[in-house]
Amino acid sequence: MNAAVPGILRARAALSRLIEPSDTMGQALVTAVGPEHAARIASGEEPPGEAVRRRVSSLLDESGIRAPGRALAEALERWRPRAAGLAPDRDLATAVRFGGTLLVPEYHGWPEALYDLGLGMPFCLWARGGAAVPAAPHCIAVVGSRDATAYGLAITGDLAAGLAQRGRTVISGGAYGIDAQAHRSALAVADRDGPEPGEPLRTIAVLAGGVDRFYPAGNEDLLRAVADRGLVLSEVPPGSAPTRWRFLQRNRLIAALSAATVVVEARWRSGALNTAHHAAGLGRGVGAVPGPVYSANSAGCHRLLRDGSAVCVTDASEILELADPIGLSHAASPGDTQPETGDHQRADHDGLAVEDILLLDALPLRSGAVVEKLAVVAGLGVPAVRAGLARLELEGLARRSRAGLWQRAAR
Amino acid sequence: MNAAVPGILRARAALSRLIEPSDTMGQALVTAVGPEHAARIASGEEPPGEAVRRRVSSLLDESGIRAPGRALAEALERWRPRAAGLAPDRDLATAVRFGGTLLVPEYHGWPEALYDLGLGMPFCLWARGGAAVPAAPHCIAVVGSRDATAYGLAITGDLAAGLAQRGRTVISGGAYGIDAQAHRSALAVADRDGPEPGEPLRTIAVLAGGVDRFYPAGNEDLLRAVADRGLVLSEVPPGSAPTRWRFLQRNRLIAALSAATVVVEARWRSGALNTAHHAAGLGRGVGAVPGPVYSANSAGCHRLLRDGSAVCVTDASEILELADPIGLSHAASPGDTQPETGDHQRADHDGLAVEDILLLDALPLRSGAVVEKLAVVAGLGVPAVRAGLARLELEGLARRSRAGLWQRAAR
Repeated sequence: MNAAVPGILRARAALSRLIEPSDTMGQALVTAVGPEHAARIASGEEPPGEAVRRRVSSLLDESGIRAPGRALAEALERWRPRAAGLAPDRDLATAVRFGGTLLVPEYHGWPEALYDLGLGMPFCLWARGGAAVPAAPHCIAVVGSRDATAYGLAITGDLAAGLAQRGRTVISGGAYGIDAQAHRSALAVADRDGPEPGEPLRTIAVLAGGVDRFYPAGNEDLLRAVADRGLVLSEVPPGSAPTRWRFLQRNRLIAALSAATVVVEARWRSGALNTAHHAAGLGRGVGAVPGPVYSANSAGCHRLLRDGSAVCVTDASEILELADPIGLSHAASPGDTQPETGDHQRADHDGLAVEDILLLDALPLRSGAVVEKLAVVAGLGVPAVRAGLARLELEGLARRSRAGLWQRAAR
Repeated sequence: MNAAVPGILRARAALSRLIEPSDTMGQALVTAVGPEHAARIASGEEPPGEAVRRRVSSLLDESGIRAPGRALAEALERWRPRAAGLAPDRDLATAVRFGGTLLVPEYHGWPEALYDLGLGMPFCLWARGGAAVPAAPHCIAVVGSRDATAYGLAITGDLAAGLAQRGRTVISGGAYGIDAQAHRSALAVADRDGPEPGEPLRTIAVLAGGVDRFYPAGNEDLLRAVADRGLVLSEVPPGSAPTRWRFLQRNRLIAALSAATVVVEARWRSGALNTAHHAAGLGRGVGAVPGPVYSANSAGCHRLLRDGSAVCVTDASEILELADPIGLSHAASPGDTQPETGDHQRADHDGLAVEDILLLDALPLRSGAVVEKLAVVAGLGVPAVRAGLARLELEGLARRSRAGLWQRAAR
């Protein structure tokens, strides 16, 4: 044992080695007796005792988790086999060697947002990269399929760049496809802006395995760049394999760390939907990017939209609105989102009363008409036509020729 | 006057000539005194009298429409200019000449669904084509932009054909783009099936102008085919121009006649959104088809999805679900919608308990492992591993070699 390592760090490092993510019995034990005592119990150094058992049981009760009487004993059985290989000091030394650190709830830098996970909160976060995790309101998860289409990659690039440009941190996994593109695009914004002091953190990758090895191998350079310029996080210690279970649990961290989770492309059954459901369960915003209905890679997004789990988002402003629904930051306006279409020009009849629309419809474009004719065509009384023509003339929509005939004017 | 024409038909034909669509004062008058008396008042043949004024005023009150004391007098002023040209017998003769008829609430064939419009109900429907209007549960409105993209036309074709094949009637306007494609595609189903007795009505066009002239001219052949095989409807009499106001009001008829309205493509500001809002206001289903976020022609659909006015729909089954939310007809299943993707194959871990997923993750694909090793890797107790291996073996997911080592098996 290295006496220089604080007991809390060592205990939490050990717990993260002994106990699989989202094992609520483990977090209940930590809550009941603190991390150091919990680590001794989990590793079999010390028996739990009846008082601990009761406290754990009532904590689980409070969280609405049904645990049979033998639940703690069974937990100890599943944790104990790993106790033999336990070496938290070595794991911590490995993290330091990779320029990383261990984030724990007791010390500064722990993301408060993770408390929302309740007994599903991780014991610690193994971090690679020097930056601090920004508070959840500044973070947006951008997730999606590995087998992304060109469309998915393009929109991911636009969204992640848009978010990074607005000072938000993009959070994603480390997979090929959408995840990789999100990091790449956020890093490109960082590169363009150059390394300024106080530069906001552009991107965080949350891995299912240890931060010592970047998985998949093809993303090694990218994840290294994320660690250099951003942050790579994991709740499992160095050397841990990225198993299916850990992938599924990793998704809850991505969701919890972010104010909103956006699914860019996902097939009907996709891990990205799992992240979205975690986000919804945590009361975070959930967005889905629509795509062509013929694209199987958008089927999962449409599924989220269809069942009401997600809000339709098409650009970075709409995502910010999702993360900040009461509009403390930028409110999206149609003009922002589609400035190029010209679809937003004020139509001639905007804001006109019904009678004036009828009258405008009746006004000839060329030639001209007398008031009585306009009354017949518009289906209005003569006085109403007179009053309406005056209003339309003021609006620049009608004009009278010298012969006293009325016609439309282009506004 | 042609004595052979029943008074009710003549009166309603006259009202549809004198009064613009959605003039609630007109429908209030008809409700108060009946169509024949109302027509005499509207045309100025007879003064309304104080009792009529009071009844109309209280009807408007009941409908929550604020009408000032002079409201009826003002209405008479705007209706009277058209009285001079009134010729309901001629209009009815024109309709008959075009193989049409006049639908009125008093006679068989009036679509009951229009009563949902309250005082916005039309006085009558000028119909061209011999078929009856099916009840709303059988009708689906498919609407969208004139300037449709290839994507919009393709999906409109698929949706309208899918609906027609399932015996539904597609209702739309008469415009280029999405409207025309919806009719074309529904008619193609009718053509393929041939003219059978009892053939369901495949398509209805609701026009903003009179049914005597097909507008726009480029759709004349198509609308003629709709009249031949389906039905062309309008609430304004023959000879009426399709004004902007009538387009907007026509949209409420499309919405009211249909169990659900689906917007396939619409720009940020589009008449199709107006139809969708009418449908929502009437408690009808509203669907929007998603598309690429880079397409300005999908911006209106995404807007509907985003503000929650519409449900995301991607195929005909999902539209039927929208029209029949409690599932009396077809329920969409993922297998129906995406049969070709292979995305719906049962994943290996479907339905497995958490412990079994952990264990499956731990099982080596080649070589093999002893139970104690699996306990360490999976983070499970030895008894749990033994029990889990038995379950996975039964499921065909694990197998034991003769040497007693465990490995994964392909299910």
